Amino acid sequence: MALQEMPKVGLGLWKIAKEDCAQTVYDAIVAGYRHLDGACDYGNEKEVGEGIAKAINDGVVSREELWVTSKLWNTFHAPEHVQLAVEKSLEDLGLDYLDLYLIHFPIAQKFVPIETRYPPEWFFDPTADEPKMELAKVPLYQTWHAMEALVEKGLVKHIGVCNYNSALLHDLMTYANVKPFALQIESHPYNTQEKLIATAKNYGLSVTAFSPLGALSYLELDMASANESVLEQAVVKAAAERVNKTPAQVVLRWNIQRGCSIIPKSTKLSRLKENLALFDFALNDSEMDAIAALNADKRFNDPGDFCQAAFNTLHPIYD
Amino acid sequence: MALQEMPKVGLGLWKIAKEDCAQTVYDAIVAGYRHLDGACDYGNEKEVGEGIAKAINDGVVSREELWVTSKLWNTFHAPEHVQLAVEKSLEDLGLDYLDLYLIHFPIAQKFVPIETRYPPEWFFDPTADEPKMELAKVPLYQTWHAMEALVEKGLVKHIGVCNYNSALLHDLMTYANVKPFALQIESHPYNTQEKLIATAKNYGLSVTAFSPLGALSYLELDMASANESVLEQAVVKAAAERVNKTPAQVVLRWNIQRGCSIIPKSTKLSRLKENLALFDFALNDSEMDAIAALNADKRFNDPGDFCQAAFNTLHPIYD
Repeated sequence: MALQEMPKVGLGLWKIAKEDCAQTVYDAIVAGYRHLDGACDYGNEKEVGEGIAKAINDGVVSREELWVTSKLWNTFHAPEHVQLAVEKSLEDLGLDYLDLYLIHFPIAQKFVPIETRYPPEWFFDPTADEPKMELAKVPLYQTWHAMEALVEKGLVKHIGVCNYNSALLHDLMTYANVKPFALQIESHPYNTQEKLIATAKNYGLSVTAFSPLGALSYLELDMASANESVLEQAVVKAAAERVNKTPAQVVLRWNIQRGCSIIPKSTKLSRLKENLALFDFALNDSEMDAIAALNADKRFNDPGDFCQAAFNTLHPIYD
Repeated sequence: MALQEMPKVGLGLWKIAKEDCAQTVYDAIVAGYRHLDGACDYGNEKEVGEGIAKAINDGVVSREELWVTSKLWNTFHAPEHVQLAVEKSLEDLGLDYLDLYLIHFPIAQKFVPIETRYPPEWFFDPTADEPKMELAKVPLYQTWHAMEALVEKGLVKHIGVCNYNSALLHDLMTYANVKPFALQIESHPYNTQEKLIATAKNYGLSVTAFSPLGALSYLELDMASANESVLEQAVVKAAAERVNKTPAQVVLRWNIQRGCSIIPKSTKLSRLKENLALFDFALNDSEMDAIAALNADKRFNDPGDFCQAAFNTLHPIYD
């Protein structure tokens, strides 16, 4: 039987290079990870599948003990493309069901056939002189109803959304026949998202925080600078000293302790283990509050900013 | 023939007391106002209608020279209630069409019959021991399609939305058969909303800034303090001195000059005239930029905060 609950710590697969991916996934499962957070857009689902297959073949884990998440890319929002997209992810992963399938962004882009380019990414035609994002007129409610059909067909156990705000979530709750299981959003001490998380929980959704270490996830993309690291904050260091853990563990624990699951990424075995070792200590209330007080509504991953910078397309979703 | 364009300055009718309303509307029309921004929820549409009727009867203006906006309240979102709501507003206003009808908030509340309570406001049952907002499962797309039917029936010339963010606007644009004419949002130098306004304009919408003087609109509601007034800012005072206008005129002109229409409220004849006298001067680029730089993403009118404070209901829409 498939897992009923999403394990609190998952391995975030965004930005793991193809060549490292199978081994990292295997190492993570051996280290105890039971939750893998992937997406079509990450471009490494075949390699994730290789890592899973090796772990299952080696008897480390069974499929039913793993929680595997993937995400519907923007170009597959049209109802007639949703099943195509999940079947491609399942084929690449070598699985016959996903535990969770999420709408990756509340953005419907023009369809790109799998044969033309996969993953399709943000540009409609990257070979154009001025590559642009092209929108498709597909309402989110139609995409959601197509996601619901995947549950009925047994291709996915649960469905949910990423990068939705409160207003979109309220609207989704009015038309959802299959209740959304999870909301995945950027959240860390510099972007605590308290109202949105409370709203999601109020509706009974599980909340997953991506980029739980904040700026650290964005250094390699030049989307943040090292001096923005929350790990340098005095309150984080002080708590780390008191509980005898690393600052990263404190920041990850903070998110779990307030009720979110987290999906930190690493390819280093020592870091993978560190990120999972969060359940033999606790932060006290004043530490929890002091870390939450670092909030500055700082978002590192804003597709609007990205689209503007990368190809001069105006498409904010958080404003 | 009805007006084709929304006049840049309208009289905002929110918070104008019934007893002042007919006279204020009449005075405003005599002073030159051709745009009245009302709503079911403001509780004064009968009195607005009296002011309009007197101005028309006195030969000051014809119906066709006026732009009259009203708004669909949250409790009338269900498709079967939308026409009911606009007909009630038209009846109260004594008009046979509106120039613009807006969805007031992206929030669907449980229906309250007109006979039970009008305007229905935020509480489902204000006599309950613990009054609460009660939601209705009405998707925004269904409400929008019902709004479109009002255009087809000639009850309203244009339709639009208030208090939508970029994500909701993108979604609306995927399913709108009748293109939204306008977006109305809170905007002033402390909340410039540049990305949202650019997004709306990119889609061809007209943008109306409510509470264009910022905190001033909220003093009487104890939702702001006088020291938050943008009129006290040095850059505003300096510009006012240079153009020989009041700080309020500078702040209002700033919004118009960047391409928004505005709907300041006043009941004082001198103030009404002041708020309309914005077209015989201009701010220079450095003044425009310096005023825009006051932005602090400060929102005075957040129904989520209001619902939380007034009746302990969690319902953010901007987070």
